[in-house]
Amino acid sequence: MQRVVVVGGGFGGLLAVRGLHRADAAVTLVDRQNFTLFQPLAYQVATGSLSSVEVAVPLRQILRRQRNARVVLGEVDGFDLDARRVSVRNLPNGGTLSLDYDTLVVAGGARYSYFGHDDWAPYAPELKSLEGALDLRDRILRAFEAAEVEQDEATRAEWLTFVVVGAGPTGVEMAGQIAELGKDVLHSEYRAMDTRETQVLLVEATGRVLGAFPASLSASGERQLRSLGVTPLLETTVVGIDATSVEVETKDGTRSRIPARTVIWAAGVTASPLAGLLAQATGAETDRAGRIVVEPDLTVAGRPDVFAIGDMVTVRGQQLHGVAPVAMQQGRQVARTIRSGKREPFRYRDKGELATIGRSRAVGVVRGIRFSGFVAWVLWLGIHIVYLAGFQNRLLVLTRWTFSYLTRGRGARIIHRP
Amino acid sequence: MQRVVVVGGGFGGLLAVRGLHRADAAVTLVDRQNFTLFQPLAYQVATGSLSSVEVAVPLRQILRRQRNARVVLGEVDGFDLDARRVSVRNLPNGGTLSLDYDTLVVAGGARYSYFGHDDWAPYAPELKSLEGALDLRDRILRAFEAAEVEQDEATRAEWLTFVVVGAGPTGVEMAGQIAELGKDVLHSEYRAMDTRETQVLLVEATGRVLGAFPASLSASGERQLRSLGVTPLLETTVVGIDATSVEVETKDGTRSRIPARTVIWAAGVTASPLAGLLAQATGAETDRAGRIVVEPDLTVAGRPDVFAIGDMVTVRGQQLHGVAPVAMQQGRQVARTIRSGKREPFRYRDKGELATIGRSRAVGVVRGIRFSGFVAWVLWLGIHIVYLAGFQNRLLVLTRWTFSYLTRGRGARIIHRP
Repeated sequence: MQRVVVVGGGFGGLLAVRGLHRADAAVTLVDRQNFTLFQPLAYQVATGSLSSVEVAVPLRQILRRQRNARVVLGEVDGFDLDARRVSVRNLPNGGTLSLDYDTLVVAGGARYSYFGHDDWAPYAPELKSLEGALDLRDRILRAFEAAEVEQDEATRAEWLTFVVVGAGPTGVEMAGQIAELGKDVLHSEYRAMDTRETQVLLVEATGRVLGAFPASLSASGERQLRSLGVTPLLETTVVGIDATSVEVETKDGTRSRIPARTVIWAAGVTASPLAGLLAQATGAETDRAGRIVVEPDLTVAGRPDVFAIGDMVTVRGQQLHGVAPVAMQQGRQVARTIRSGKREPFRYRDKGELATIGRSRAVGVVRGIRFSGFVAWVLWLGIHIVYLAGFQNRLLVLTRWTFSYLTRGRGARIIHRP
Repeated sequence: MQRVVVVGGGFGGLLAVRGLHRADAAVTLVDRQNFTLFQPLAYQVATGSLSSVEVAVPLRQILRRQRNARVVLGEVDGFDLDARRVSVRNLPNGGTLSLDYDTLVVAGGARYSYFGHDDWAPYAPELKSLEGALDLRDRILRAFEAAEVEQDEATRAEWLTFVVVGAGPTGVEMAGQIAELGKDVLHSEYRAMDTRETQVLLVEATGRVLGAFPASLSASGERQLRSLGVTPLLETTVVGIDATSVEVETKDGTRSRIPARTVIWAAGVTASPLAGLLAQATGAETDRAGRIVVEPDLTVAGRPDVFAIGDMVTVRGQQLHGVAPVAMQQGRQVARTIRSGKREPFRYRDKGELATIGRSRAVGVVRGIRFSGFVAWVLWLGIHIVYLAGFQNRLLVLTRWTFSYLTRGRGARIIHRP
């Protein structure tokens, strides 16, 4: 029976573990958190549409019936690839642990990067983690509360201005949802001010929103954003962020200062530090985003017993987006390779991509066909409900979304830290 | 049009506001938090049965259609009763505010008291607040995680020992739920240890559990607790708590040390500091639990324009429990008095009380009839679903409970702070 250690319980790692369900293997899944996050919906936590437990399912619950898998909570801080050993620290009892393996799968994921400006992080939280999403929810809701009691008109306008940095799917979704909060959901709940004065600015360095989509869908996405009241600022980069403003620079070098008290970071991505650790241990290359370059069979160069997958890797000779389906297919392939011993080059089967913009608004390509507006939104809804990790959650999310749609309300609008 | 300021958005305060729906009044509700907590179910958050948003509903959502009511987030730090003015600090924009009133309603609630041992608080969180419940959830789940990786047998037993202090309804409910987690829910999810070794000790100073109930129901409750594996330690008081143990003393003066890493505090209650502030401003008495003594018409002595209600008060000449129905009826009566100007002595209409112990286990008195076991549990379930503040939540909670009951699973088992 071979010992398999999987590091990271995101989409890739979890599907690698699940794929070893019937294998003659003893699988250990190590993660710092006791849940897997349905990251594509994290932005809905940040805007109060979903509760944290609706997008996060306990790992132990998912693996309850998989008797050959165990879960260890802890942080991997080193690989000894010659001794085939992984060291884990910060165990829940305060201790450390050494895990021996025959096969290692590393799936540490990615996080947002502030392009070397980590000093912006306190003013502009990101959305990759559940903590980040909950932090953002508190900030967004508190900004409306602050605007309600603010007497000074200019300061109130600052509280009602939200700047989203990065117009990829997450940035677009966030911008759309905040606009909806202000224009629609919250309108009837405040008395001293008009939440419809909410300004949402979407800053994007390239020339169009949703750059990974065909140009016609970018254009449609931009139209749909504008119809919600979002103002895209294209060919514009952020050059400074502080507590009360964002400084931007347009392509022609003009700088200007946007007074705003809430900034959401959804721009550049950087790989988990585990990619660097692994590259260091093997001499493998990393790319500009810190991702480790893996062979087409998803192993690390010279280490046929070490697989790396998901957002923290780039497959040699392939250009893949850092999206859930890539990680999932890689996780499944690794499990197949471990089971069969047969190595094959990874080939991504692209079934399409969808991005939602707001209620009844979305764009997408599914099996080559382009959709936008209501039809795209219904597709998006269906696919996300089907993919939601736990059955219980799927039904609860459906219930909440149905209510949300019918009542235009949002039930999860709780400020945790007053 | 009279200006009414209501301080505190719990059961009492919220029903006072709602009762002024059609009144010719401008109502301002001040609360430190933007939600009302369905406190009787907070313990279900602590054990992962419900998510925080299922027991907490945004105040603005509840009052959305009540155009004569506004909500201000902030902390009341002083009453100037002669000038009829309330001062509010810690507004979301960092500012302060003065609110003028014609009628004041103070409903600050209560919290647990550590009997002068505030040094125990870090080791034994309480359950009155959502923060406390979430903190407890993290601790309880992390204790099981720690036991799973712990090599030393004695230390593992400490991680699997839970001490609940206080055998009122909340303590009994917590003890029962933790026992169920260990004996049932979590059993199939851990590999290195048997969660059925979980020990739950329920420490109670008096001679029986659920002391507010008739003796026969206390006895039934104790039997049901024991059948779940909870060990009640009656006529026992806590004399010390640290990170790894609880020291107790029995009636005959014998002291002993219980090795345990998780302690839940559900004992003595103390009134909100607002009761003290108000007593200071009016010269009214307070009782041993810090509650202000109010007149039978719920006003503070000598101040017909100042009402105080709920867990922070004791009505002169009446002995009432600090339970939700009392606060709710007081809130309604205050609204009626403000509307009509007619003052009447408060009379509590006791419809009964129920306490749940676990799945299919409960005790209760409803309209004088005693119930225990499955029937009491179904009654408890029905009443709590009916009373849940928001309609959306009611359905979601019902969905989750149904699943929880059928699958014996608990979906909200997320450790937020790793």
